[in-house]
Amino acid sequence: MNKRKIINDPVYGFITIPFDLVFDLMEHPFFQRLRRIRQLGLTNYVYPGALHTRFHHALGAMHLMVLAIDVIRSKGHTITEQEAEAACCAILLHDVGHSPFSHALENSLVKGIPHEQMSVLMMHELNNTFEGRLQMAIDVFNDHYPKKFLHQLISGQLDMDRLDYLMRDSFYTGVSEGVISFDRIIKMLNVFKDELVIDIKGIYSIEKFIVARRLMYWQVYLHKTVLAAENQLINVLKEPSIWCKTERNFLLHLLSTFF
Amino acid sequence: MNKRKIINDPVYGFITIPFDLVFDLMEHPFFQRLRRIRQLGLTNYVYPGALHTRFHHALGAMHLMVLAIDVIRSKGHTITEQEAEAACCAILLHDVGHSPFSHALENSLVKGIPHEQMSVLMMHELNNTFEGRLQMAIDVFNDHYPKKFLHQLISGQLDMDRLDYLMRDSFYTGVSEGVISFDRIIKMLNVFKDELVIDIKGIYSIEKFIVARRLMYWQVYLHKTVLAAENQLINVLKEPSIWCKTERNFLLHLLSTFF
Amino acid sequence: MNKRKIINDPVYGFITIPFDLVFDLMEHPFFQRLRRIRQLGLTNYVYPGALHTRFHHALGAMHLMVLAIDVIRSKGHTITEQEAEAACCAILLHDVGHSPFSHALENSLVKGIPHEQMSVLMMHELNNTFEGRLQMAIDVFNDHYPKKFLHQLISGQLDMDRLDYLMRDSFYTGVSEGVISFDRIIKMLNVFKDELVIDIKGIYSIEKFIVARRLMYWQVYLHKTVLAAENQLINVLKEPSIWCKTERNFLLHLLSTFF
Amino acid sequence: MNKRKIINDPVYGFITIPFDLVFDLMEHPFFQRLRRIRQLGLTNYVYPGALHTRFHHALGAMHLMVLAIDVIRSKGHTITEQEAEAACCAILLHDVGHSPFSHALENSLVKGIPHEQMSVLMMHELNNTFEGRLQMAIDVFNDHYPKKFLHQLISGQLDMDRLDYLMRDSFYTGVSEGVISFDRIIKMLNVFKDELVIDIKGIYSIEKFIVARRLMYWQVYLHKTVLAAENQLINVLKEPSIWCKTERNFLLHLLSTFF
Repeated sequence: MNKRKIINDPVYGFITIPFDLVFDLMEHPFFQRLRRIRQLGLTNYVYPGALHTRFHHALGAMHLMVLAIDVIRSKGHTITEQEAEAACCAILLHDVGHSPFSHALENSLVKGIPHEQMSVLMMHELNNTFEGRLQMAIDVFNDHYPKKFLHQLISGQLDMDRLDYLMRDSFYTGVSEGVISFDRIIKMLNVFKDELVIDIKGIYSIEKFIVARRLMYWQVYLHKTVLAAENQLINVLKEPSIWCKTERNFLLHLLSTFF
Repeated sequence: MNKRKIINDPVYGFITIPFDLVFDLMEHPFFQRLRRIRQLGLTNYVYPGALHTRFHHALGAMHLMVLAIDVIRSKGHTITEQEAEAACCAILLHDVGHSPFSHALENSLVKGIPHEQMSVLMMHELNNTFEGRLQMAIDVFNDHYPKKFLHQLISGQLDMDRLDYLMRDSFYTGVSEGVISFDRIIKMLNVFKDELVIDIKGIYSIEKFIVARRLMYWQVYLHKTVLAAENQLINVLKEPSIWCKTERNFLLHLLSTFF
Repeated sequence: MNKRKIINDPVYGFITIPFDLVFDLMEHPFFQRLRRIRQLGLTNYVYPGALHTRFHHALGAMHLMVLAIDVIRSKGHTITEQEAEAACCAILLHDVGHSPFSHALENSLVKGIPHEQMSVLMMHELNNTFEGRLQMAIDVFNDHYPKKFLHQLISGQLDMDRLDYLMRDSFYTGVSEGVISFDRIIKMLNVFKDELVIDIKGIYSIEKFIVARRLMYWQVYLHKTVLAAENQLINVLKEPSIWCKTERNFLLHLLSTFF
Repeated sequence: MNKRKIINDPVYGFITIPFDLVFDLMEHPFFQRLRRIRQLGLTNYVYPGALHTRFHHALGAMHLMVLAIDVIRSKGHTITEQEAEAACCAILLHDVGHSPFSHALENSLVKGIPHEQMSVLMMHELNNTFEGRLQMAIDVFNDHYPKKFLHQLISGQLDMDRLDYLMRDSFYTGVSEGVISFDRIIKMLNVFKDELVIDIKGIYSIEKFIVARRLMYWQVYLHKTVLAAENQLINVLKEPSIWCKTERNFLLHLLSTFF
C-alpha cells in the first residue's frame, strides 16, 4: 500500500505524507480523534468559517516541518532521515492530548492536567504500540535530543506550530491581518551552534509575524464574544442545574463537540 | 441595535447584512440550526478542510444576490427595495429545510420528503412568526412572482446558490479546479423580458463555470471514498444491530453531527 | 458609445469606469502617457515583477475611491453625483504630472518643479479642454472644497493613493509583507464634521497598514540596489561623458523609458 | 559570491536559483536583454497589467522545471545533477532568441528566421563563452538526448514553458479563467519508457489545463484589439511614410520597446 498520500489543503495547496510512520500515526484512533476537535473552539460563533480542526492543523504544522528541514539541509546542516522522521512525528503529535475547548477548560474544570502533559502520555502509549519507533520523536519533543534546533522547530518563539496556526486561523476566519509570509520565514531559518536562528535579512518578516500574531490575539483569540461564550460554557458545565435555562442552540452545539 | 453587521468570510472577504429582516431571520433557531449541518456531509474524510456549514453557504449565496441585484439595477432594470429584500430572504432560506447528510439520506431512509419541501414548510412557519413579511420571498422562491429573473437568481441554471457552493466547496476542499470567476459571471448578468440572461461577452466565463462544475462532481461530490462513507452511514442507520461492528471513530463522527 | 467599460485588474479583479468623463480623461494623451511610466522606476532590477505603471495605479486608486464613496454614503453622509465624479477625476489625475523616475530626479536634476505642481498645471490644461468640467475636481484636489473629507480621500494620512500603491506595489513585487486589508479599511471609513475618520473597530487594520507601509519602505522603496541604480541614473544624466563607461544594458533600459 | 539567490515572484512566491551556471547565464547580456521584451507584446493596451517580460517568464519556467525534477525523482526515476542542470539551463534559454513582438513580426517582416532558430544560435554562442558547459543543455533542447522526457519538459504538449506562460499571463492580465493547478499537474508528472506521462488521477487537472488554454486564446492571445494593434505595428514598420499619420502615443510606445 502506498502511504505517501497527497492531501488537499486550502492553505498550502497540497500536503504530502513524508514517511510511512506518519501515515500509520494518522490512522491511529488517537489522531483520528482530532478530527472532532476544533482548533478555535467556539470562535465560529463570531467567525463562521473557523471550523478547522486540530487534525488539519497538525498536518499543516508537519508540512511546514518538511519545508523547514529542506531549507536547513540546503544550508549545509546535517539532518538524518531518522531525525527528519522524528521531527515530523513529534510535530504531528504535539497537540494529540487536546480535548475539546481545552484552552477554556484547562483553567477552570480540568485543573492540573495541561494538554501538553496529556500529549506526552499519549505519545508514550503510541511508542509502545509502535514498538519504540517514536522514541527519538519523544526525545525531540521533550528537548532531550542534542540537536536542540529540532525541538525549537516544534516549540519555541518561531516554531512550525505557531506558523501553521497563524496561517490557518487567519485563513479560516477570513481575518487577513493574520496572514504571514510563512514561506519567506522558513527560507530564512538557519542553525547556529545547534540552535535555530534567522538569517539577518529575514528580520522584517519576523517583525510582521510578531505584529500579525498580536493582531490575531486582539481580533480573534481574545474576541469578547468568543470569551463570553467560553465563559458560558464553563458555567454550564460546572452547574448542570442551569442547563435548562441555557440557550438551546448553544447546548446542542456543545454536545455536538463532546460526542 | 445596528443589524447591518459585517461578517468575515474567507471566500469573499466580507459579507454585509443588507436588511434588518435578514438579521432577524439569521437569529432564528431555524437558521442557527444550519450552523450544525455541514455543506458536504462526510466529504471531510477525504478533504479535511471541507467542514463548512449550510449556515455559511446561505450567507454567501445571499451576498452574491446583493451583488447580482446591484449589477442588474446598474443595467437599467428596476428592482424595488422590497423585491431586493424578498430575494435576499428567499436565497437565505433556500436550504433551511436541510437535515444532516440529507443528500445521502433522502434517497434511502427519509423517502418522500425532499429538503426543498421542508424548506418551504419552514419558510411558511417563519412567515407566520414574522407576520407576513416573508410573503414576497415565498412567492419569489416558488416562482409565483411576475419578475421571473428573481426566482432564477435563486434556482436556475446559473443561480447564486450554485455560484456560492462551487466557490465555497472548491475553497474549503482546496480543489482549485472548481474555482470560478464568480465576480465576472455576476457582472455579465442581465435581464431580458423578465428572464435572467448573460451578456454575450460572458460566454467564456460560463463555459469555465460548466467545466468547473463537472470537475467538482468528479473530484469531490462523487469521490468514491465519500460515496462509500455515505453508504456505510445509510447501512448503519438502517441496521442498528451492526453499530457495534462499525468503526468507532466513524460512529462518533456521525453522532457529533446528529446532536 | 458605451463608456462604462470594465477593465481587468489583477489586484482587484475588475475596475468599472464610473463616469463618462473618467473615460474621456483616460483617452487623453496626458493620461495615456502614464502607460509608459513605471510606478517603481528601476525597482524591477531587484523585483522583476515590478513593471506596473502609473496608468494602472491611477485606475486602481480611482476604483478604491468609488468603493470609499459607497461606504461613506451608506453611513448616511451625502455625496452628490457631481461630487463623486469630481473626486474620481481628481484621484485619477493626482499623478498625471509624473515624469519617468521623477522621485529620483526631483531631488537632483529637475529642481524646483515637484510633480504635484506639474499635475495641477496639467489638470488646469485639461479643464480648459473639457470646458470647465474639471473645476470641482481641481477644487477638491487643492483642498478648496468645503467637504474636506473628499480631499483627504485623495491626499492625507489614509488616502486612496496610498492604499492602492501599497496593495499594487506589494502585489507586483511579490513582497507579501505589504499586503493590507484595503477592503476592511475602506469599510471602516467614516466622516465626522466633514473630516475623514475611521470607525473605532478599524484600529487594528490601521496599525497593520502602518506596519505594512514601513516594511515596504525597508524592503522595496529603500532597497539598497534600487537606490544605487537610481544614483547611477542621476550620475549618467548629469555627465553624458561617462555614458560610454556605463553598463550597456542599463543604458538601454533607461532609454527605453525615456522614449 | 553566493549565487543561489532567492528572487521574489508574485506568481510562485519565491524562485531559488538552483545552479551557479544558471546565475551566470542570467547575468549574461543575452539574457538580461529579455528584461526589455514583454511576454505579451501589445496586450497591455487591453489588459493594463500585462507588462511582464520574457526574463520573468524564463525564470518561472525554470522554477517549474526544478519542481518537476523533484517530483520525477521522488517517483524513483534517476535524473543526475548534471542532467538537472542541463534541463534548467535549456528551459531558461528556450526563448532567448525572441525579439520584441516576435510573434507578430515573424509572419510579416522577419520571414524565415523563427525565434526558436535564433534561440539555438544564441545557445551555441553561449556554449562557446561558457566553454562547453551548455552542451548537454543544447542536446536536451534539440531532443538529441536519450532521456526524451527531459526534452518533453521543455517542449511538448505539457511542458514547463506552457505551464508558466498560462499561469503568468492569466496572473498579470487578471483573467482568472486561465489559472491552472500547476502544482497538481506537476505532482502528477511521471516517466514511462523515457517518455513524460501523467498519472491517471491527474486527468481532470489536464482537462482543466486544456480548457484554460483555449479560454486564454479566446480572451487574451486572440483579442481583437490586440491583433489590431499588432497589425497596425506591422503596417507602420513596413511603411515608414505613414508613421507621421500614426497615433503618436502608439509610436512612442513601440519605440520604448525597441530601444
